[in-house]
Amino acid sequence: MATTAAAEAIPAAPALIDELVAANRILYDQGVVDGFGHISVRHDKTEGHFLLARSMAPGLVTSADIMEFDAEGNPLDAAGRTPYLERFIHSEIYKTRPEVQAVVHSHSPSVIPFGVVATPLQPIYHMSSFLGAGVPVFEIRDSGGPATDMLVRNPALGAALARALGDRPVALLRGHGNVVVGGSIREVVFRAVYTEVNARLAAEALRLGEGRMVFLNDQEAAAATQTNRAQIGRAWDLWKAKALGIAR
Amino acid sequence: MATTAAAEAIPAAPALIDELVAANRILYDQGVVDGFGHISVRHDKTEGHFLLARSMAPGLVTSADIMEFDAEGNPLDAAGRTPYLERFIHSEIYKTRPEVQAVVHSHSPSVIPFGVVATPLQPIYHMSSFLGAGVPVFEIRDSGGPATDMLVRNPALGAALARALGDRPVALLRGHGNVVVGGSIREVVFRAVYTEVNARLAAEALRLGEGRMVFLNDQEAAAATQTNRAQIGRAWDLWKAKALGIAR
Amino acid sequence: MATTAAAEAIPAAPALIDELVAANRILYDQGVVDGFGHISVRHDKTEGHFLLARSMAPGLVTSADIMEFDAEGNPLDAAGRTPYLERFIHSEIYKTRPEVQAVVHSHSPSVIPFGVVATPLQPIYHMSSFLGAGVPVFEIRDSGGPATDMLVRNPALGAALARALGDRPVALLRGHGNVVVGGSIREVVFRAVYTEVNARLAAEALRLGEGRMVFLNDQEAAAATQTNRAQIGRAWDLWKAKALGIAR
Amino acid sequence: MATTAAAEAIPAAPALIDELVAANRILYDQGVVDGFGHISVRHDKTEGHFLLARSMAPGLVTSADIMEFDAEGNPLDAAGRTPYLERFIHSEIYKTRPEVQAVVHSHSPSVIPFGVVATPLQPIYHMSSFLGAGVPVFEIRDSGGPATDMLVRNPALGAALARALGDRPVALLRGHGNVVVGGSIREVVFRAVYTEVNARLAAEALRLGEGRMVFLNDQEAAAATQTNRAQIGRAWDLWKAKALGIAR
Repeated sequence: MATTAAAEAIPAAPALIDELVAANRILYDQGVVDGFGHISVRHDKTEGHFLLARSMAPGLVTSADIMEFDAEGNPLDAAGRTPYLERFIHSEIYKTRPEVQAVVHSHSPSVIPFGVVATPLQPIYHMSSFLGAGVPVFEIRDSGGPATDMLVRNPALGAALARALGDRPVALLRGHGNVVVGGSIREVVFRAVYTEVNARLAAEALRLGEGRMVFLNDQEAAAATQTNRAQIGRAWDLWKAKALGIAR
Repeated sequence: MATTAAAEAIPAAPALIDELVAANRILYDQGVVDGFGHISVRHDKTEGHFLLARSMAPGLVTSADIMEFDAEGNPLDAAGRTPYLERFIHSEIYKTRPEVQAVVHSHSPSVIPFGVVATPLQPIYHMSSFLGAGVPVFEIRDSGGPATDMLVRNPALGAALARALGDRPVALLRGHGNVVVGGSIREVVFRAVYTEVNARLAAEALRLGEGRMVFLNDQEAAAATQTNRAQIGRAWDLWKAKALGIAR
Repeated sequence: MATTAAAEAIPAAPALIDELVAANRILYDQGVVDGFGHISVRHDKTEGHFLLARSMAPGLVTSADIMEFDAEGNPLDAAGRTPYLERFIHSEIYKTRPEVQAVVHSHSPSVIPFGVVATPLQPIYHMSSFLGAGVPVFEIRDSGGPATDMLVRNPALGAALARALGDRPVALLRGHGNVVVGGSIREVVFRAVYTEVNARLAAEALRLGEGRMVFLNDQEAAAATQTNRAQIGRAWDLWKAKALGIAR
Repeated sequence: MATTAAAEAIPAAPALIDELVAANRILYDQGVVDGFGHISVRHDKTEGHFLLARSMAPGLVTSADIMEFDAEGNPLDAAGRTPYLERFIHSEIYKTRPEVQAVVHSHSPSVIPFGVVATPLQPIYHMSSFLGAGVPVFEIRDSGGPATDMLVRNPALGAALARALGDRPVALLRGHGNVVVGGSIREVVFRAVYTEVNARLAAEALRLGEGRMVFLNDQEAAAATQTNRAQIGRAWDLWKAKALGIAR
């Protein structure tokens, strides 16, 4: 309630905050995050700023937990709320990817193994076609040395991760998790969920095919990604109803 | 509510629509479909027509979402409701399979890997004995070329899929999902669920046996399929009670 | 309500029927049975008779669904209720195993793969130590020929299964499921649940160890089985509370 | 209610008992324990004593079930309550590890396979970095001979297990389960949950990488463990809300 130095903060639209809260709950309900992981969205009124929950389990987030951050990852009106240590994942990606509107960082369980082996993560089916752009693995030792605590805990590590991500939608963090970006909250949630599903199904297919399987080719991946853009709402409606206990 | 050009539509029996709604919920509750996938049934009053929900998550379908389609997959009384892009899976199969009364298309997760490897899907036990008829894999590149968005989005692709399916109960769609047909809503739901279970168990057995395992032989598969016809209600009653929250 | 020719039936103790109903619900809730599978117990008042639900999903069974059968598997007071086709699994095992008080037949999912490969099911830990007695696989082709519907649908097949089981607590049915016996409803439920858990964990260990793993030896298996007899109530209380929605 | 010889028992703080009850429920809800397994905490008022539930399923424990034990594992005020057979796991570890405040023993399912194969359990990601200290396997045959019932049922076996554990946070018990220690109830619960998660993910990665994968190195493991100490509350709040049905 008490205002701090950053009294100039302009409130984001309540509907945007509600959508971000719903996204937090969905990511937990769909098994993408457990007590850890986070999702941010660009502020709709202040260029360069973004919205992100205080440091807490995504499954318990409410609108009162949503904080505003500036382009460097500094909280504007903390009001006693502790920010996530890894908010620089978000700030540094927003700096280099103007078209990105939302970012998810998670320890999505089925994806973790792909971050520690040589086998690349590729799209097994059209739902995860966005992976066809390639999925780089960020090795924190390259920029942070051999003795980090694995966290992207400062702007330099955030920038290194953003470089590894490049212009792609997903990057894996070795021994840690992954980061997913999208053009909206709904798109990034869709991608985070299907990255997890794809990892589970592709691992299964690689075992069944003893390493040999047919992935989507580049053209199929691009075409399916284009088609899926108009279909995201179908999954979002279901996931939101389930996570918020609205329907069924 | 408003009627369109197709004012001659004769309403289907409410009990049939209720059964189709229940089937949508069951397929979601049993993990056969997520936000995507669909189930249709032949119209009980109009030859060649079929019933299918509007484009939405099956788990949220209610009777108001059920639309009628003609034999070419055109909606009769859309009333602002958007049809599924892939309704031609249904229309084209109904054209070539007069005995089929209901069709399920899903991205049933355990089945996806079998669509992208050389290992065929075969029946590990009597519950999935209907797979003994053989499970073809539909490669969309053969008819749609190397750059589709993977969707069966027009009658030509639907007809190609129907040809691949032939006279069998199940076909896999490479990099996409599968299609299951049956003599009733209950039978197609039963088959869709046990196709998923069979894929999970057969993959496990193939690993355990390092590729060697005993499947049902043709005679066992045929005899068990005959027996199961009278047992489907036992599973349906449970699944319906669970999906609709009636019992327990 | 109406009595039939078998008017001489003496009602079983209500507490025994309640226990059998609870066992049906537990087996469903713990994932041992789905819409199929069944559990019986010896009648407490009539030598050679046993109690078993009518043909229905175990998860929906109530006391009104419990029927009485004679030693040959004939229902005493069907009153319009349809018996399970495979009741002869129960009748024939009770004939040859006087110490057995309860029998479970299921398609317990993790166990199915062990019935179709050469790898034997062995106890990975003390909870499933009863498997140390050896787990035979019943091949129905040996007694029923190559064209059965896989069901133990008559006394002859039931007797063949009982012979395969011998004096052991568990037998697998190739391409079908398994049968578990015990000295009480609680013991057979305990064994059915831990047979399923053991199959899942042993399959995982066999993969991890590339076929090499340490199982319980015969002495350990026997000693742990003796100890577990006094511990079964701990699991039963939890499972019952969960399945019947009593606690938490 | 009735007091016994040990009338000198000083009650532990109610908040500590509540925390221990919550921990019991969380371990069940997170799948670390089923009907078996237990968690203890050092008594906050009496040096050398500890608190542990009576012999029952952790998921059903209430404050009335918490008993006090002396340093030798003898109950102080049993009042008719039966203690766990394996309370000596707790008493003997507390004797040799003064810094340990809480102990979990479980049959955590994904961990069981690592206890029976040669492959060591190592940390795949930062959440389970505490495993970087090494995870010994306790072979009960070494101290108990070839014919035990697998239980750590006396002080001598408890002491042997404590020696195998040494100064590490986790030890596996071959053919049985594992033991986890921590500096608080919350830390030991955190470690027990992520030991289970790590086992599942590492097994998957070892398959995917055909035995080759990158684990955290010693420096990363140590640094991440230090960082995680301040983050445990985030998971605890979620798990407690879920297990006790407080939120969502």
